[in-house]
Amino acid sequence: MTNMAEAQLIALDWGTTSARAYLMGRGGEILAERSKPLGIMQVNRNAEEKSLVLEVAFGAAFEELCGDWSETLPLTPIIACGMVGSRQGWIEAAYRPAPADLSTQNLELATVEVGHGQRLHVIPGVLDSKELPDVMRGEETQILGALDLDTEQSDSEDEQLFLLPGTHSKWVRVKGQTIIDFSTSMTGETFALLSKHSILSKLMDPATDENWNAFDRGVRVSRSSTGSVDVMLTAFSARTLVLTGRLERTEVSDYLSGLMIGSEIRSVIERWKDREVPALTICGNQELNKRYARALALFDVQRVRELQGTAARGLWSVASTAGLLQASSV
Amino acid sequence: MTNMAEAQLIALDWGTTSARAYLMGRGGEILAERSKPLGIMQVNRNAEEKSLVLEVAFGAAFEELCGDWSETLPLTPIIACGMVGSRQGWIEAAYRPAPADLSTQNLELATVEVGHGQRLHVIPGVLDSKELPDVMRGEETQILGALDLDTEQSDSEDEQLFLLPGTHSKWVRVKGQTIIDFSTSMTGETFALLSKHSILSKLMDPATDENWNAFDRGVRVSRSSTGSVDVMLTAFSARTLVLTGRLERTEVSDYLSGLMIGSEIRSVIERWKDREVPALTICGNQELNKRYARALALFDVQRVRELQGTAARGLWSVASTAGLLQASSV
Repeated sequence: MTNMAEAQLIALDWGTTSARAYLMGRGGEILAERSKPLGIMQVNRNAEEKSLVLEVAFGAAFEELCGDWSETLPLTPIIACGMVGSRQGWIEAAYRPAPADLSTQNLELATVEVGHGQRLHVIPGVLDSKELPDVMRGEETQILGALDLDTEQSDSEDEQLFLLPGTHSKWVRVKGQTIIDFSTSMTGETFALLSKHSILSKLMDPATDENWNAFDRGVRVSRSSTGSVDVMLTAFSARTLVLTGRLERTEVSDYLSGLMIGSEIRSVIERWKDREVPALTICGNQELNKRYARALALFDVQRVRELQGTAARGLWSVASTAGLLQASSV
Repeated sequence: MTNMAEAQLIALDWGTTSARAYLMGRGGEILAERSKPLGIMQVNRNAEEKSLVLEVAFGAAFEELCGDWSETLPLTPIIACGMVGSRQGWIEAAYRPAPADLSTQNLELATVEVGHGQRLHVIPGVLDSKELPDVMRGEETQILGALDLDTEQSDSEDEQLFLLPGTHSKWVRVKGQTIIDFSTSMTGETFALLSKHSILSKLMDPATDENWNAFDRGVRVSRSSTGSVDVMLTAFSARTLVLTGRLERTEVSDYLSGLMIGSEIRSVIERWKDREVPALTICGNQELNKRYARALALFDVQRVRELQGTAARGLWSVASTAGLLQASSV
């Protein structure tokens, strides 16, 4: 059983499609962990279907996710990162601009009442106002967690690269503790749409396991001279290779995944075409980490490592710097 | 009223989403024309919903489209091009390989009984068996029609380029009357999916008219050094430009359209980076022709013309070469 008396922080990684809650102990260790499909899109749907004010729907989602924790631990601070701080979230936390020093002492957290007299502290995302601007919410906290987990590397002033794969993958350049700039790729969402709704779905049979041969083949095509065009011009091959008997229906999904992830990587690393790609850390779930790590290896990108559990660590770090932890031990 | 006695040919352009029928006179002129949303996807759905054998569903669709013509004109030949000749169509017409001489006397047409003792003749598509193979069905007939409409250009042995925009746009290299090779881009289908189902759709307000400024802006981004990466890495800007107040919600759709069409063009013309792009003919509907022509101009592609009505002309040409027209005048 969880020793609730040990708890120092309730930490939430609250994104677009899911919400994850951590109960964290004195040293930042995870005492308990939960995940619910209560991402902000679902909460928005709930509000609409039940004709609730959005704040009320978020309050109900919070109760469902960790209401028992906050009731048992009325003095324990609560912190969150992710899309919960967006315009479609619970409380909008204004973006901070890039370059953004993640170790800053002066971070302004947005706060919102969660009931029982407690407040939820929401970490702001980061806005990169370049010509094609870019935004992140939650990934900045994962990166801080990754830097925190690996003090050796983060002390270095060398540029490093973080990849946060997902519905919208983020590629983030970091120097020391500072986010320099970043780019978003819509690969994950577009892959899901093409797989479900496009003509490619007609010849796509479900496979029981990942077919790594088909995946690697897709990556290699994206790296070849034939394949080094926009992915819109190569995706149709997921159909024509089947029509010509050169790809099995059960291979289509992984072939397309390799093709799309490969095209994304090719585009991103083009930036370092005459230099070595910086040391790269992938922070995602196990399956996506594996896909990107394989594809990066096929592109001969060296110095790649994978990290998980970075969100909880980053949430702890922000709570600590913001003085929330001291407050609770009073 | 249509002078039915003049009719020499019933010609069908039967694609994925729609079916168009032409009644053609002695000189190949169009006496009457009809279009129904009876593309092969719809016919397949009809068959499923009504538990019909697929051939029966196609027979019913044919009756609905032009059964009155074929009944009144029992001796008039009937010809079709397009996806009706695919595996999900009425009768599979085996692909001919590229390079494909469109003026060949030896074209094998597939045939299927349509009732009243009449047969439908189906024009085979073309297969380009390159490393990433490609297929077309119907576009080859449009190109033949375009060549036929413009004898001056088609006599020339210079390479020329045909663009057939649509759900899946085709870029086809042609020399004389021969298709050399071609590529398919999934731009149209992916644009529709991103517009309807992705996160971009959330900030996309319908516009009453095309917003050409927003479209041109998207094209220019795709041509800029910032934008010359895979479209997966630029599409998110359709959201972030709105979030940062630099794009109106009513502009999102046309901006994204310009961005995607521009990325497609950039990828395709890369092939001629050190030479002039060949003379280019766009054969599509009025709206798509206009979009591609604008975008090509922004890429400084010279020698671009637009043609419509190429399918009917191509169907006439094949029927004539195959000796179907003589048969009917007996």
